[in-house]
Amino acid sequence: MTNVKDMLATYPADLGDIDRDKLIRCIEECIACAQTCTACADACLSESMVGELTKCIRTNADCADICTTTAAVLSRHTGYDANITRAIVQACAIACKACADECESHAGMHEHCRICAEACRRCEQACNDLLATLG
Amino acid sequence: MTNVKDMLATYPADLGDIDRDKLIRCIEECIACAQTCTACADACLSESMVGELTKCIRTNADCADICTTTAAVLSRHTGYDANITRAIVQACAIACKACADECESHAGMHEHCRICAEACRRCEQACNDLLATLG
Amino acid sequence: MTNVKDMLATYPADLGDIDRDKLIRCIEECIACAQTCTACADACLSESMVGELTKCIRTNADCADICTTTAAVLSRHTGYDANITRAIVQACAIACKACADECESHAGMHEHCRICAEACRRCEQACNDLLATLG
Amino acid sequence: MTNVKDMLATYPADLGDIDRDKLIRCIEECIACAQTCTACADACLSESMVGELTKCIRTNADCADICTTTAAVLSRHTGYDANITRAIVQACAIACKACADECESHAGMHEHCRICAEACRRCEQACNDLLATLG
Repeated sequence: MTNVKDMLATYPADLGDIDRDKLIRCIEECIACAQTCTACADACLSESMVGELTKCIRTNADCADICTTTAAVLSRHTGYDANITRAIVQACAIACKACADECESHAGMHEHCRICAEACRRCEQACNDLLATLG
Repeated sequence: MTNVKDMLATYPADLGDIDRDKLIRCIEECIACAQTCTACADACLSESMVGELTKCIRTNADCADICTTTAAVLSRHTGYDANITRAIVQACAIACKACADECESHAGMHEHCRICAEACRRCEQACNDLLATLG
Repeated sequence: MTNVKDMLATYPADLGDIDRDKLIRCIEECIACAQTCTACADACLSESMVGELTKCIRTNADCADICTTTAAVLSRHTGYDANITRAIVQACAIACKACADECESHAGMHEHCRICAEACRRCEQACNDLLATLG
Repeated sequence: MTNVKDMLATYPADLGDIDRDKLIRCIEECIACAQTCTACADACLSESMVGELTKCIRTNADCADICTTTAAVLSRHTGYDANITRAIVQACAIACKACADECESHAGMHEHCRICAEACRRCEQACNDLLATLG
């Protein structure tokens, strides 16, 4: 569906030592997680018990914004600065963990939270896997 | 890869008359196009002839921002306002057309522009297909 | 506070016929409106009557995303494409009008909605003023 | 210009121990820095020596994205999660430092880089000041 792998293959300059498979995986999980979190926040708003889901909606919104930004930063390589990359991927892993924890607590009652928790866990893992290779 | 379809299936409220398949397709194309445009802008920055690609980089950045926002707006349904949806999807179709035109003019020389032009064309088509169903 | 005017003054290329004062005003209103809408959505989530504010929260989120993107597009001038600019500023005016209308209906009860409605009206006006000069 | 302070004053729930003045300042610097970085990237694209400014353009784009997201996260308080806040503000301080360093190296030649370096330094400082109060 996405062009992450194909675009990386056409990159005209050296990518350095970065693990390409983990980079591709992390970008793909970030963009999937961002969309899922935005959709989950909106689904929560449509639940009759919305008053009990406000923390979930807020965490979804934070996680969506951070995942979108992380995907954009990871899609850029010119004049690569490992400090920026490491910091935003760490922030993304933390936001995904917080959102996964929160959504899991509603997963038994709301299917959108169950799917969203899984997307957040996958993205958290992809971020941590990429971080482990950044040195 | 993405959860667009699964999340839509769990939406707890009525979605109204919107064509679900065209909505799913449009969201998926928007998020793929946004990432491709960000990557294309950065690949252009790494070309030795970057001075001839500045319009492409700018159009890529505009298209990426507009596609990301369009995907987010389309992922929300609570208190649906068709005027906002129509306006942002129209803007997205126009940005994708402009970016596809620009990238196509470099497609013979830069593979990243060729792939990006195709992503923009698919997204432009998905936006126009969704617009046709919005009435 | 912002550097919109100073940055425009340092732009190294020709800006064409665009009305600089209306451009500066529109960028400043867009970034103020985006922040106000994000804060209003979150304040609505903290109200005990959140169940009656779900449409407001959704419209706030859409308006914030569209204003942020409009400010970014308007901050770029290289290889200027008037079609993209016009389309996103039109979408922004429509989103601001919808959000102002919605927030005004809660303005008597919630001070954050009153302030947000005013920010949206100012941004709507700035967008329409800029559009009138784009030809 | 912005409504950051007024919106915070209308927040209907307890904000906890956070230092309001430092929070307001950090949000305001983030949104000013994001716009300045986007404008600086575009001004760099218009310089005849763009080939020597590609790292600056990339760092500007990363910094703009991270500042925009940080402003949004800081504008939300419902169900406050200090871990997310701390991580994104740390990432923002790092991105602002990297962008300030890069822009400063061009400040003698390009006025837009000089102004942008100052905006990045102010935002870096505001992030670090807020971090010091988060415990």
